[in-house]
Amino acid sequence: MFATRVDNRADRAIRPVTLERGVMKNATGSCLVKFGDTHVLCAATIEERVPGWRKNSGLGWVTAEYAMLPASTSKRTPREYKGRKGRSQEIERLIGRSLRNVCDMGAMGGEVLMTVDCDVLQADGGTRTASITGAWVAAYDAFEMWRKSGKCKRNPLFGQVAAISVGMVGGRLLLDLDYREDSKAEIDMNVVMNAKGEFIEIQGTGEQAPFGKATLDDMLSMAQSGIEELLALQRAAVQL
Amino acid sequence: MFATRVDNRADRAIRPVTLERGVMKNATGSCLVKFGDTHVLCAATIEERVPGWRKNSGLGWVTAEYAMLPASTSKRTPREYKGRKGRSQEIERLIGRSLRNVCDMGAMGGEVLMTVDCDVLQADGGTRTASITGAWVAAYDAFEMWRKSGKCKRNPLFGQVAAISVGMVGGRLLLDLDYREDSKAEIDMNVVMNAKGEFIEIQGTGEQAPFGKATLDDMLSMAQSGIEELLALQRAAVQL
Amino acid sequence: MFATRVDNRADRAIRPVTLERGVMKNATGSCLVKFGDTHVLCAATIEERVPGWRKNSGLGWVTAEYAMLPASTSKRTPREYKGRKGRSQEIERLIGRSLRNVCDMGAMGGEVLMTVDCDVLQADGGTRTASITGAWVAAYDAFEMWRKSGKCKRNPLFGQVAAISVGMVGGRLLLDLDYREDSKAEIDMNVVMNAKGEFIEIQGTGEQAPFGKATLDDMLSMAQSGIEELLALQRAAVQL
Amino acid sequence: MFATRVDNRADRAIRPVTLERGVMKNATGSCLVKFGDTHVLCAATIEERVPGWRKNSGLGWVTAEYAMLPASTSKRTPREYKGRKGRSQEIERLIGRSLRNVCDMGAMGGEVLMTVDCDVLQADGGTRTASITGAWVAAYDAFEMWRKSGKCKRNPLFGQVAAISVGMVGGRLLLDLDYREDSKAEIDMNVVMNAKGEFIEIQGTGEQAPFGKATLDDMLSMAQSGIEELLALQRAAVQL
Amino acid sequence: MFATRVDNRADRAIRPVTLERGVMKNATGSCLVKFGDTHVLCAATIEERVPGWRKNSGLGWVTAEYAMLPASTSKRTPREYKGRKGRSQEIERLIGRSLRNVCDMGAMGGEVLMTVDCDVLQADGGTRTASITGAWVAAYDAFEMWRKSGKCKRNPLFGQVAAISVGMVGGRLLLDLDYREDSKAEIDMNVVMNAKGEFIEIQGTGEQAPFGKATLDDMLSMAQSGIEELLALQRAAVQL
Amino acid sequence: MFATRVDNRADRAIRPVTLERGVMKNATGSCLVKFGDTHVLCAATIEERVPGWRKNSGLGWVTAEYAMLPASTSKRTPREYKGRKGRSQEIERLIGRSLRNVCDMGAMGGEVLMTVDCDVLQADGGTRTASITGAWVAAYDAFEMWRKSGKCKRNPLFGQVAAISVGMVGGRLLLDLDYREDSKAEIDMNVVMNAKGEFIEIQGTGEQAPFGKATLDDMLSMAQSGIEELLALQRAAVQL
Repeated sequence: MFATRVDNRADRAIRPVTLERGVMKNATGSCLVKFGDTHVLCAATIEERVPGWRKNSGLGWVTAEYAMLPASTSKRTPREYKGRKGRSQEIERLIGRSLRNVCDMGAMGGEVLMTVDCDVLQADGGTRTASITGAWVAAYDAFEMWRKSGKCKRNPLFGQVAAISVGMVGGRLLLDLDYREDSKAEIDMNVVMNAKGEFIEIQGTGEQAPFGKATLDDMLSMAQSGIEELLALQRAAVQL
Repeated sequence: MFATRVDNRADRAIRPVTLERGVMKNATGSCLVKFGDTHVLCAATIEERVPGWRKNSGLGWVTAEYAMLPASTSKRTPREYKGRKGRSQEIERLIGRSLRNVCDMGAMGGEVLMTVDCDVLQADGGTRTASITGAWVAAYDAFEMWRKSGKCKRNPLFGQVAAISVGMVGGRLLLDLDYREDSKAEIDMNVVMNAKGEFIEIQGTGEQAPFGKATLDDMLSMAQSGIEELLALQRAAVQL
Repeated sequence: MFATRVDNRADRAIRPVTLERGVMKNATGSCLVKFGDTHVLCAATIEERVPGWRKNSGLGWVTAEYAMLPASTSKRTPREYKGRKGRSQEIERLIGRSLRNVCDMGAMGGEVLMTVDCDVLQADGGTRTASITGAWVAAYDAFEMWRKSGKCKRNPLFGQVAAISVGMVGGRLLLDLDYREDSKAEIDMNVVMNAKGEFIEIQGTGEQAPFGKATLDDMLSMAQSGIEELLALQRAAVQL
Repeated sequence: MFATRVDNRADRAIRPVTLERGVMKNATGSCLVKFGDTHVLCAATIEERVPGWRKNSGLGWVTAEYAMLPASTSKRTPREYKGRKGRSQEIERLIGRSLRNVCDMGAMGGEVLMTVDCDVLQADGGTRTASITGAWVAAYDAFEMWRKSGKCKRNPLFGQVAAISVGMVGGRLLLDLDYREDSKAEIDMNVVMNAKGEFIEIQGTGEQAPFGKATLDDMLSMAQSGIEELLALQRAAVQL
Repeated sequence: MFATRVDNRADRAIRPVTLERGVMKNATGSCLVKFGDTHVLCAATIEERVPGWRKNSGLGWVTAEYAMLPASTSKRTPREYKGRKGRSQEIERLIGRSLRNVCDMGAMGGEVLMTVDCDVLQADGGTRTASITGAWVAAYDAFEMWRKSGKCKRNPLFGQVAAISVGMVGGRLLLDLDYREDSKAEIDMNVVMNAKGEFIEIQGTGEQAPFGKATLDDMLSMAQSGIEELLALQRAAVQL
Repeated sequence: MFATRVDNRADRAIRPVTLERGVMKNATGSCLVKFGDTHVLCAATIEERVPGWRKNSGLGWVTAEYAMLPASTSKRTPREYKGRKGRSQEIERLIGRSLRNVCDMGAMGGEVLMTVDCDVLQADGGTRTASITGAWVAAYDAFEMWRKSGKCKRNPLFGQVAAISVGMVGGRLLLDLDYREDSKAEIDMNVVMNAKGEFIEIQGTGEQAPFGKATLDDMLSMAQSGIEELLALQRAAVQL
């Protein structure tokens, strides 16, 4: 397929990643995350209410919303005014589960809702993994603000979470696929991990080709190395 | 947690599974699949049209719809009239991808759409894995009917696909979780495989607890043994 | 038109009718009703709440929902996600009124809601009359369960209700039309009656041909004889 | 109940009825119908198109829409922006069937759609029967206009259609119920007839009380006398 | 363009305007306003509730809804069942702001909601200006009724509000455009004023042609003279 | 009210304005516009299709969409999934009209659609005026790209368009209101002008207080001086 990757990356290399904090004045916490040409604006808002089913639990809740700006894609994507797309809901459910995995919802200071909005400004593959990685930074900052204003005693995030994609393209395993790679991938896998090297989510799809256990093991190992880099960048961003 | 499983099953045992074909007179193919108390009615319909984006490709398409009857759950579930739920769309996308993985869409006899409707009559955990397993039988029968009426030359399904769940409950790995087990599971994984022992989809979620590589390996091995049983039941059902 | 009816029935004969109870583990009461090839799954659920307008009345309420599985018809019927069809709402209003006519809503044990879901598995004409007939059985069983658990003192159903269609096809009056007959009928009438031989609903439509009083009288007489058979089958089903 | 009816009408008397034609400049045909304090604006529009399923039939189609102005009721009725009500759809289906019963859709001059909009300005019981009665006048005038402009050879309406309600209130049969009577009625029946004294639709509901055959016969006879008055008023209105 | 206006009006003349009160029995206040062939039925309803955001303010609120009957236009306009049109919402927001400008919402007798429904029966240009002018009369009458029933101490309307359009058509400034003029206008302006000669809203659009300050001044002057006539007609209507 | 404005601006001073081009790789043209703390991302996309009503005209069309990111406001704003808000539609209609006023739609190279998406990243008053001002830059760049790729002969924009708000706050006229000023304004006016000093749109609202002609003249004069500054910044941005 490609003798080399479009951007001359090594197969096991992630794209240049930046995590820019505090980019939205009105959000409690925010982070503009870039995985190469994929740019996602993550904004965490905290409100003193919870969904109906969570009432009288004494616990908080963390949820996420995901959307793409129409011009984020090379062919304009219509807004989801006439019914949410399954893909968008699937991604926002994934982001929410990932954050809740590292959050002590009993430590949010009561029945409090954090919503992390992930709006894709520019899409070039990996929008869900960039969203999770940036959402953690936005959530961390929002909870710090919350803690500093006396609303909770400690930051309810007890760990980090980050995500990366890995796939097989033309028979070769590649880390952190961009759009052109992703659209040709035989296997596409998204992996979410914490800082202890444990899995939080694994979503592997072989729509073009099924895959054996050995390939799976290679993909997970490759993903783990990428996620370790992302976790370090997160720590640097929030000065942990 | 449980000294024994509610139904006295071994940890690595699947529930009693039945695949009853030809249960809906008006569907091209149909299968009532039961995984214990989880009952799903799968109906495959073939229409001579494809979605707009597929036109002029010469290829067919396979899609799925998933819904729960309101009284399929112990607390009545409202119908999705006011907007589809993300969960339902996520499941129907999974069913569709699984079937397409074993279907030669160039052999469907032109621009032809197969829709497999999976309607849950009774829910007791594992509705998505039962749906995939039953959907394959309904699709197989519908394509046989299609082939016999001269619409295509051979059955476009070139392989089988089946699915099972595996999870960790109270620190113990269990196969094919029922609802009570599923609602307490620390880790929940759905695995879709073909008859060559290859993975088509892996969706593992550690919402309650992250998990390491060794646990993942055990879960996948347990899933594979369950799926082999399901594939044999499918072959018996369609007399392959 | 037909020298004989498709299935060799006499003009005044109903199709083979079965009423199978207890078919859904999670419903409070359920009944799979078959009028020949028309199969409807009726499930009665009781919840301890009433619609807003009924609050503080001390009375219960009985309502119904009606839907067709997509593959219940020979040409696949799309699900009603983008707006309810008038026909479906008209039918569910009819089912609800019929049940309320024989229900003492002051004896339901307070502000309690019964919803009877009628999901058509297979449609071959007469889905609304089969729904009413089966819904009564499901409701009866659900109320028995309610009574046995001490929630109400007696079964609030003080009578039976059943329904049948009658129509004119090719100038001949026929009872309990199947789909092929129904689609050619000049006159189509649905009759709902109680066990005292009284009318609860009469809905007669002469879209193809208006009709005189004599014809109406014949149709009502024919309907009554069919309904008497259905009422006997209901009593047998619930062992009254 | 009432010693006399609120407006001193005899039990078998209809309310004062007026049919005012040509009230909407932009409609092809229009009629403001008043049954006492029930006022409905009926407007017939003809467009040179038919619904998709009717294409290539060479035939026309007649349909209706029904809505209530929010202030037509004593308690303001919200507009149906968030989903059509079953009641409204049920009524507009009834109006459409009634008109089609007296219309030769092969004589409309090709694939032509008539839509009759029935908008209730003021509701005081009997809005559906007033709508049908007025809709016929609007449709007649629109078809006359169509004929005069050479679009069809003769008026496709080959007969008249009108409708009235009859009900039992406090044990007494009353014709043409107003809102106060209707809301207390034990039995409520709407009857649609043509000028030959034949029935087109009978919709009788005994939500409060079932009824026997003798009562039904009395109601139908009372309805027929009312409809004869309405048919005469229609003829006078269009100068037939 | 036109040597004379279609209806021989002078350029600075408004159409014949009538304001007919009390036309809807069930509305608290109502007014059928006619600006030539533009007819709008305005109905004011008062309910003892306010929108959620207004609760616990002790203040009332005034809002409006605007819709066109399908047959009000020469080409039938579909009802807004599948999503509100931006134009309708823009107009109803304008009507609401205009009325609130002359209403003391602290004098409505508590947390009380007035809704003014403006339903266009016949559209011939200027439906929004007719709506505002008629809505004031309906609101005035509804508040009088409210005051007389002791719900508030004085009529909360402390002034009048009326509106007119002015536009440039073929280079000529014209007052109160009808539909044919409006559809050819290079500039279209709607002006809302009170009885002190002050502006409440100015909405000028030069979609076909931008305009200079001198033209603007002429248009506003022309509008003011028209509005003075309307204000006098309002006073006559309500006998102020 | 304020002795000085929050940010020490003079009453007639606009906020610091920047127009950053080319910020979205996948859009045909884009501009991140900042009016102080109000940030709007404007993206122009060109597609070779037009709306249905524009077909066979040989002309192009220009439209706009406007939305706010949920976290753009200090209190999170829900996404418009359950029905568009009137305010959003009103603003996007205004943006579209403004651009069309300076665009020769016959010079777009055929039946071609430009959509300018204006997504508010951060809202601090004046989002609609910033959107118009930035949308012109995005549209200009997209048309330049279109022209350079040979799709049209010249840039169809034959002039510039920019917009500013002006209002009365505490009796003082202020230019380019920020959110705190806007929320207290007695009068709020948005003015859209071209580079010839002509008005394209004037939308003045005196919800808190009506205003006389002298005030209007002052506001328009103040707006014009602000718009001249914006037009100069646009020219600098696109190097005209």
